[in-house]
Amino acid sequence: MSPPPERSQFPVFRTIATRWMDNDAYGHVNNVQYYSFFDTAVNAALIEAGVLEPASSPVIGLVVETGCRYFQPMAFPDLVSAGLRVDHLGARSVRYALGLFRGEEDEASAAGHFTHVYVDRATRRPVPIPEVVRRVLSGWIGAPAR
Amino acid sequence: MSPPPERSQFPVFRTIATRWMDNDAYGHVNNVQYYSFFDTAVNAALIEAGVLEPASSPVIGLVVETGCRYFQPMAFPDLVSAGLRVDHLGARSVRYALGLFRGEEDEASAAGHFTHVYVDRATRRPVPIPEVVRRVLSGWIGAPAR
Amino acid sequence: MSPPPERSQFPVFRTIATRWMDNDAYGHVNNVQYYSFFDTAVNAALIEAGVLEPASSPVIGLVVETGCRYFQPMAFPDLVSAGLRVDHLGARSVRYALGLFRGEEDEASAAGHFTHVYVDRATRRPVPIPEVVRRVLSGWIGAPAR
Amino acid sequence: MSPPPERSQFPVFRTIATRWMDNDAYGHVNNVQYYSFFDTAVNAALIEAGVLEPASSPVIGLVVETGCRYFQPMAFPDLVSAGLRVDHLGARSVRYALGLFRGEEDEASAAGHFTHVYVDRATRRPVPIPEVVRRVLSGWIGAPAR
Repeated sequence: MSPPPERSQFPVFRTIATRWMDNDAYGHVNNVQYYSFFDTAVNAALIEAGVLEPASSPVIGLVVETGCRYFQPMAFPDLVSAGLRVDHLGARSVRYALGLFRGEEDEASAAGHFTHVYVDRATRRPVPIPEVVRRVLSGWIGAPAR
Repeated sequence: MSPPPERSQFPVFRTIATRWMDNDAYGHVNNVQYYSFFDTAVNAALIEAGVLEPASSPVIGLVVETGCRYFQPMAFPDLVSAGLRVDHLGARSVRYALGLFRGEEDEASAAGHFTHVYVDRATRRPVPIPEVVRRVLSGWIGAPAR
Repeated sequence: MSPPPERSQFPVFRTIATRWMDNDAYGHVNNVQYYSFFDTAVNAALIEAGVLEPASSPVIGLVVETGCRYFQPMAFPDLVSAGLRVDHLGARSVRYALGLFRGEEDEASAAGHFTHVYVDRATRRPVPIPEVVRRVLSGWIGAPAR
Repeated sequence: MSPPPERSQFPVFRTIATRWMDNDAYGHVNNVQYYSFFDTAVNAALIEAGVLEPASSPVIGLVVETGCRYFQPMAFPDLVSAGLRVDHLGARSVRYALGLFRGEEDEASAAGHFTHVYVDRATRRPVPIPEVVRRVLSGWIGAPAR
């Protein structure tokens, strides 16, 4: 199994503050919340790149598969730095790789993937990824040059 | 301060299963989640009474005030029985009283209130409560006769 | 890729009510919440089988890997029926397969996996799965005979 | 009813990123999540002041009452600035006033209160607020001088 990724493997980051209720009865961020960091990182990046308007975009990404491996615990009040890149860009779907970093650490506490299929908002039928979105996603393939 | 309410003070109930992640680092259902039980009980009752269609109702209730007093802890895997009644029915707003009961207990573990103002879905401007909704809400005023 | 599983493939079930706030801006249960159904089904089954006491068990399961495939949307106020079985029972870890069924449907709306590694509660070092837990988990391997 | 508070009424702030799943079916941060901002602001402030160690403090604050008034909606990906002050400091309890500010806005989008009763962690019986905690809380009474 591949080792925890490092920050250099991700071109885009988003910082997310943990919340008191993220900690579960075992005193660490619950496994479920990691997916909210993935979900938040991906959608925030799309919104900030100008290619997603949650209330009105006629074509939206629906989640069809996600997964996460947990390496080290995180706990409130940690700040989480969520890194993403595009691992596969298809005609109608995109698969993101994500890494979650605790505070300033360079080795990920968790890593996962997240696949969106693009659909027509009204019919929820798959459609090609719009060209303007594709241009943005292409820029997130792989990590930045060093 | 008024004592914990009893089941007989509420005409409508909804059972909600607690979830593992509802428990926080102190091992009980986190104070925030109690409001998800309020929110769920009110909206489920409206949907089941046929007067709310979340995806399409042209007039919807927006929350303008909520509050909760906590008497006894609850913890996963408790089942929560959420009781509601209408305490005040205005022209454009409705105030619900809620009680949360642990399992089969007759004395509430928590009690609160929840106020909806009715608005036009598109403009978000306040509007009179639709007559069909008002009829349903009127039936939830006070508790059932014994 | 394997098709959506059916109820008959799971020996243990737990019913979980969706909550109003489970629905996200696209009007369906958010992808993150599916993992709270997994987490809840597994821990509730362990507690009800008498082999997990969240506040005091000296040996606990920590989550090291999870994943989910989403086939059909679910939405509040759906009831979710979460089925589980044990797919792999190792010396120190157990991998569950899970299926989430909407209401009375026989074909899963989502399916996933969830792996616990058993650790000492204080040191968080891996330990063998206690014999009493192993006996329970063994009973959840595969589906019931027909 | 009092108007929305301004930033100058709060001496301590915490910034919290909204998450995609905070938005509910009506496209704004769900009313429940506002309480997670309150809960997070209070506990983060206590931890950073060095008077709360969630895993081990022998005396902890349990929530006995909360409330919130909602003035303006917030929505993902807004940053929320949560301000707090101490409104009442009793022998065994403390009542916080909270204001939630959207981005850089000076007028609160929501305001509420949050009351902790201090208890012995093991017995959950009320105890006097420890002197070291009281000194910190005293510093948060009212707003800073101008």
